[in-house]
Amino acid sequence: MLSDQNLASAEAAPLPAPALGEPYLLTPGPLTTSREVKEAMLRDWGSWDGDFRGMTSELRRRLLALTGDTKDEFDCVPIQGSGSFAVEAMLGSFVPRDGKVLVLANGAYGLRAAQTLVYLGRAHTVIDKGDYLPPRGDEVAAALDADPAITHVIAIHCETSSGILNPVAEIAEVVHARGRKLLVDSMSAFGAVPLDVSEIRYAAMVSSANKCIEGVPGFGFIIARKDELEAAKGRSHSISLDVHAQWAHMNKTGQWRFTPPTHVVAAFIEALRQHAAEGGVAGRGARYTKNRDVMVAGMRELGFETLLKDRWLSPIIVTFFNPAHPNFDFERFYDLMKDKGFIIYPGKLTVVDSFRVGCIGRMDEHVMRRVVEAAGQSLKEMGVDTAAPPEAALTERAKLAA
Amino acid sequence: MLSDQNLASAEAAPLPAPALGEPYLLTPGPLTTSREVKEAMLRDWGSWDGDFRGMTSELRRRLLALTGDTKDEFDCVPIQGSGSFAVEAMLGSFVPRDGKVLVLANGAYGLRAAQTLVYLGRAHTVIDKGDYLPPRGDEVAAALDADPAITHVIAIHCETSSGILNPVAEIAEVVHARGRKLLVDSMSAFGAVPLDVSEIRYAAMVSSANKCIEGVPGFGFIIARKDELEAAKGRSHSISLDVHAQWAHMNKTGQWRFTPPTHVVAAFIEALRQHAAEGGVAGRGARYTKNRDVMVAGMRELGFETLLKDRWLSPIIVTFFNPAHPNFDFERFYDLMKDKGFIIYPGKLTVVDSFRVGCIGRMDEHVMRRVVEAAGQSLKEMGVDTAAPPEAALTERAKLAA
Ligand SMILES: Cc1ncc(COP(=O)(O)O)c(C=O)c1O
Ligand SMILES: Cc1ncc(COP(=O)(O)O)c(C=O)c1O
Repeated sequence: MLSDQNLASAEAAPLPAPALGEPYLLTPGPLTTSREVKEAMLRDWGSWDGDFRGMTSELRRRLLALTGDTKDEFDCVPIQGSGSFAVEAMLGSFVPRDGKVLVLANGAYGLRAAQTLVYLGRAHTVIDKGDYLPPRGDEVAAALDADPAITHVIAIHCETSSGILNPVAEIAEVVHARGRKLLVDSMSAFGAVPLDVSEIRYAAMVSSANKCIEGVPGFGFIIARKDELEAAKGRSHSISLDVHAQWAHMNKTGQWRFTPPTHVVAAFIEALRQHAAEGGVAGRGARYTKNRDVMVAGMRELGFETLLKDRWLSPIIVTFFNPAHPNFDFERFYDLMKDKGFIIYPGKLTVVDSFRVGCIGRMDEHVMRRVVEAAGQSLKEMGVDTAAPPEAALTERAKLAA
Repeated sequence: MLSDQNLASAEAAPLPAPALGEPYLLTPGPLTTSREVKEAMLRDWGSWDGDFRGMTSELRRRLLALTGDTKDEFDCVPIQGSGSFAVEAMLGSFVPRDGKVLVLANGAYGLRAAQTLVYLGRAHTVIDKGDYLPPRGDEVAAALDADPAITHVIAIHCETSSGILNPVAEIAEVVHARGRKLLVDSMSAFGAVPLDVSEIRYAAMVSSANKCIEGVPGFGFIIARKDELEAAKGRSHSISLDVHAQWAHMNKTGQWRFTPPTHVVAAFIEALRQHAAEGGVAGRGARYTKNRDVMVAGMRELGFETLLKDRWLSPIIVTFFNPAHPNFDFERFYDLMKDKGFIIYPGKLTVVDSFRVGCIGRMDEHVMRRVVEAAGQSLKEMGVDTAAPPEAALTERAKLAA
């Protein structure tokens, strides 16, 4: 079985559907949010006003609580822009100008972190595992032992381009043992996959509003050790992305340095409350895991193959190979799925053709069953018979094996 | 009279009020938006999907149309984050690393542009006119003549910290005549004050979603000459704020490079449609001008004095001196105004105590009359009799004259 977290949501009543005619977003953010989250945006807030300052403070407090920081060693700094802005802010603020970063890449987001370091002019080296293999503790250890100049390691928690859940605990251990610092891009995992500071040692992590907390896009946030925040003073290459300046200003005034996305913040607070009501990280993770299990089982029955072995499948998003059947065409499949109320996501692999189905957002196993039904129906409409495929063209997986 | 633009809105029916219990935001963004703008956020959009790509394209097209660019020489590049992010993106992308910038400052936003250049490591020099005097063409000319190293000038269109409307046409003329390039921060003016490319020559300008177009906060946008956009390739200090990369990607794929604030974009498109329906820049400018005229006349009758002479008053926001009456206390005044349904704004002057009242957002002269009434009532409740003030304490203006 894929998971042992199913019990929590096994008996849950179906979640309400989106408004009539609105498709489900089976995409890893922006994603389908609840009606209440969107309705929280139906008023305007003055960003200087005490009411909004209270909202900012609630947001920071609730996010911090998700890390299990009982020793008050960490703080939370939201930052305007998309998730990539937060990653850049983290790298520019916590890596000293004479530091050196080991980037653990196995997909688009790891490579983007490396590209960001090029912009920043920070020395770095990359372990590139390609599209679907995880970076393991022993190879990280070897890289650190071989290059004492490396001061920081950046790991991608869930590499959303394949859906692989990277072994951050294992990585954190060897990084800590060698006296280096770990930065985590937990964009698509935080809030559904534990990242507890008492179990995984890291200097800083980032995520954003529109992933597992189920808010709408518009800002990211950094959770970092306070001593790291202090040390970041004067280091950033960018006024907008200066984490220390944002942190110091927020602690002093209760306000964001520059105009915050007030409506997005209001939506996020509602999302945080719903997250807590669902049982926090454990509850959210259980629902997503169930979503994945139901969806993957159904898709496999239809003849689809996952890129990854079960062990590395995240409860966030799953990559499937395009069936190599001559009638299969992704654009057509996308449109047919959209007609049935489901927006799926193109693949992001470099070598083979694939597509992705997200498990996150305001959806449950009932919806996932309908996703599978819609996929089966769409295949029929395209004349793709995966149950009895032409011998030589089983799936794109053949290319990987070749 | 302050204006000759009043006729357009003289007969208009009152605009609908915000939801019950929600205050008007007399602040220069975030501001009060229409119900329809907020309701446009009640659904989720996939950022990769064709529907959303269509929205991005409409957004860019409509914004460009506001500049009167009939020769197709300009393009529009939205960028995630707040307005300051867009200013930083503009400076980092259009000023070459060996360029030098003349910053025309008369308030907080001019000074922030200078500070941004410090982060970027770009050479610059500042003409600082203090809190309330405009930079004039002749002094800009003299500065450019004296320093041939200067390649760019940045001007603040409406310096929101005092509300002064700077003479950008006059500045643009001398900058152009001397073969230098003008960058304009039109954050708080664009959409209500003309910035027509056929009348004012500039290389690039920025504004943001939550100002005179009356959207909600979450992104800014840059409108720049295409040859400047081409030349910006490889220049940016930041991957997130790389205007050329965002532009090239958007033109190629129809998508934002990184996750866009989808709901904020949907709201903005509704705001752009309402802006067009109101008669574009002229119509919007007329309503704001009327707002200002009614509000300033009423406040003066109550004994309040404006920081600026009529000539420099913008239709965006107006700074008033705090009455120097011993009973006047800004915090108290703020709370009394808030109780009556109006959020005002603290002053941002360095020398004297002041407060600001915005004229922008979904409000009309009827609302402005109620603002004045509320201010009069609040003064009474504080025991401040401005009609017959104690001789030696007329207003804070006395300090400026001293
Ligand atoms: C792991 C990871 N890192 C970074 C990003 C970039 O975030 P954004 O698209 O909000 O810039 C994403 C987006 O999905 C992600 O999944
Ligand atoms: C003229 C001007 N420039 C820059 C900014 C900064 O914009 P933001 O607060 O969205 O970062 C503002 C904000 O009001 C402004 O009025």
